[in-house]
Amino acid sequence: MAQSLPDDQASKLDSAIRDLIINYHELNATVIDELYEEPSALEFMQYVARNRPFVVRKGAEDWTAVQKWDSHYLLSVLGDSLVNVAITPFGNADAVLKEDDGSLSYVKPLERLEPFDKVIRYISEQESNQEKATPIKYAQTQNDNLRNEYSSLFEDVPSDIPFARIALRKNPEAVNFWLGNSLSTTSLHKDNYENIYVQVRGQKHFVIMPPVAAAAVNEQSISGTTYTSTNGDEEAELKVEDLKHTLDEPELIVPVPTWDPDFPDVRSTPYSELVKPLRVTLNEGDMMYLPAQWYHKVEQSCGDEGYCCAVNYWYDMEFGGSFWASNAFARDIARAVNN
Amino acid sequence: MAQSLPDDQASKLDSAIRDLIINYHELNATVIDELYEEPSALEFMQYVARNRPFVVRKGAEDWTAVQKWDSHYLLSVLGDSLVNVAITPFGNADAVLKEDDGSLSYVKPLERLEPFDKVIRYISEQESNQEKATPIKYAQTQNDNLRNEYSSLFEDVPSDIPFARIALRKNPEAVNFWLGNSLSTTSLHKDNYENIYVQVRGQKHFVIMPPVAAAAVNEQSISGTTYTSTNGDEEAELKVEDLKHTLDEPELIVPVPTWDPDFPDVRSTPYSELVKPLRVTLNEGDMMYLPAQWYHKVEQSCGDEGYCCAVNYWYDMEFGGSFWASNAFARDIARAVNN
Repeated sequence: MAQSLPDDQASKLDSAIRDLIINYHELNATVIDELYEEPSALEFMQYVARNRPFVVRKGAEDWTAVQKWDSHYLLSVLGDSLVNVAITPFGNADAVLKEDDGSLSYVKPLERLEPFDKVIRYISEQESNQEKATPIKYAQTQNDNLRNEYSSLFEDVPSDIPFARIALRKNPEAVNFWLGNSLSTTSLHKDNYENIYVQVRGQKHFVIMPPVAAAAVNEQSISGTTYTSTNGDEEAELKVEDLKHTLDEPELIVPVPTWDPDFPDVRSTPYSELVKPLRVTLNEGDMMYLPAQWYHKVEQSCGDEGYCCAVNYWYDMEFGGSFWASNAFARDIARAVNN
Repeated sequence: MAQSLPDDQASKLDSAIRDLIINYHELNATVIDELYEEPSALEFMQYVARNRPFVVRKGAEDWTAVQKWDSHYLLSVLGDSLVNVAITPFGNADAVLKEDDGSLSYVKPLERLEPFDKVIRYISEQESNQEKATPIKYAQTQNDNLRNEYSSLFEDVPSDIPFARIALRKNPEAVNFWLGNSLSTTSLHKDNYENIYVQVRGQKHFVIMPPVAAAAVNEQSISGTTYTSTNGDEEAELKVEDLKHTLDEPELIVPVPTWDPDFPDVRSTPYSELVKPLRVTLNEGDMMYLPAQWYHKVEQSCGDEGYCCAVNYWYDMEFGGSFWASNAFARDIARAVNN
């Protein structure tokens, strides 16, 4: 049976949540560490232990991928092979969408297989001609696609990240390839992975926040929906108005952060203003360590040829110790107080 | 102004605390890892990152201290040099004491300088003749005494623990020497140090619990008191009835765990029964890593010569990252709910 708390317990609870975020920021820098060479496995483990991010500027500049992945090369390797593409009206895959009635939906993209040559041309042309709104395409299945769909490109990147493999004592769970343009945004979310992210073409603009920001991000349980096409002709190029999102069946309820640090007054909590998001831009050849369970929102700028391309390595996070359990606790307390 | 929480928030809070402890135990072994050789710096860092303890059985058996520290040798090195001794009526230094009116005090020992030869003889004789209650002595100042008071013994131990120094990138903050008998108990508490503990003579019996046990240990803010002698003759050997404890001036309020896992029904909280304490006994030559902020209670058995002797290395814990802040949060929430 539910019990009510005495008055001063509510205020102690409020102070505890504030102190968690304030203490964290007092004990940690509000800028990201910048390294100029890869860390050793031990140095990396020291970052993992503190769950703190870093960037290695030009850490991947010698990679074949960074040297070679212009459109001519990509087309020569992939040609018209079919690749998975996420299609949305506003570049909003896996995002929170406000419905006309004010309620929130979590919206997933329409996924289609399309010939690679057509996809990269579409992405580049859209980048250079944004006057007319057209659906936004992003090749980003995040399902280990660089070792599957794009395996002909896999020899251009290291098969794993040695300092991470040695420190974490495991091979990457997934190696992902990303190709899109500046119209796509990755909404604020977090992953249960240690993430090594390498920018190959264009720039990525990250806004990142540590797991203790749980009470600030206003996580809510939202109904999942998916974009589908209302155009009966499956061969026709889609228009924005062809894309409608409908409730998933069976019903899917997803816990989603609904606050966006770039719109700090919208869907904020009393704790949002306490958080100090870190901002970092990755340039071509830069490598970033994004620690497990950090909230991140990602925008991008294109390279010379009108597309952004990146690769990332996901290593399963450690669920042992207290890190995962403590973060789940902070989220549970945040939800008890915020909702 | 204090606010009250709706009923279902109180029950969500209760569930969150339960889940923190339950999740931790589901994700972690309830026995301590046993190693048979020292870890590398990287392996140690993996333990530090998970904040998980281990024992290296016979990890210190080659140390000069373990080879040599019988009473003959100790007496030959230290003779009658003055050493600090903690004196209590019941072996209860830094412990919770229940007063006649039911209130709790936190009691610190009487500290005296006495000649080493007299101290070790007292400790051994008391161990073999416990019929008559006499004050209990424990040489355990925990103030880096092995590099100060007992510096003539320091050459018998490594000056630091290489795997810890390399992984933590620092030298030990303190190296401590402990000499007592089975009548002394170290009450449940935690330290802000990474602790490498080596048993030299006798056995130590640890009961340890991870920091997520905060809601189980019933931490309370208790008035500090200190034992003093009512015997005007400072040269006389003290009797139990000479020791009285009085409130510290100025008043000192100490946050202290008041639950004891060996008396699980006394001063328990609704969360105490969820915790699974680990129990480990160190034998002569064993080395243990006790991670920062683990609650520990320690009892001991004497070696052949009627004393227990140990050495430990304290390395400052890392306050960066989320570990310290998350543990403080769990304690704050526990106190909001328990008190």
